[in-house]
Amino acid sequence: MKVTVTVMLKDGVLDPQGKAIGHALAGLGFAGIGEVRAGKVIELDLAETDPTRARAAAETMARKLLANTVIERFDIAVGGA
Amino acid sequence: MKVTVTVMLKDGVLDPQGKAIGHALAGLGFAGIGEVRAGKVIELDLAETDPTRARAAAETMARKLLANTVIERFDIAVGGA
Repeated sequence: MKVTVTVMLKDGVLDPQGKAIGHALAGLGFAGIGEVRAGKVIELDLAETDPTRARAAAETMARKLLANTVIERFDIAVGGA
Repeated sequence: MKVTVTVMLKDGVLDPQGKAIGHALAGLGFAGIGEVRAGKVIELDLAETDPTRARAAAETMARKLLANTVIERFDIAVGGA
């Protein structure tokens, strides 16, 4: 079962990577760009076939390794392409 | 209007970061983990209010800066939280 974990910096935490992307886009001539936030996605292919347990497993993984919950928040999407 | 661009390595392109995450999870005792792929998300806050044009703008940004289309594919999601 495919599980996608999206990790973003929490609102209020300074995001230099996002800022750099915003500046680069402005430098390329794109206008009307407000805040830009950068994060990461981790696609996991789990042997678990029960969606609820797959989500629970992914949440434990996110808390233990994938996200730094002091400064980052994460979302989990189960299934899908 | 919020636009989310998700950039992943194309299938078939070696993903050392994903492999490292997979190994680290196995080392932490998680079992039943198949392939792990890592990618990035960029959340853009655009002044554009028309979803079609916002998507088109984000696609141009992705092609010009956010993704390396030789080895990466990207998805664009318009609106949402």
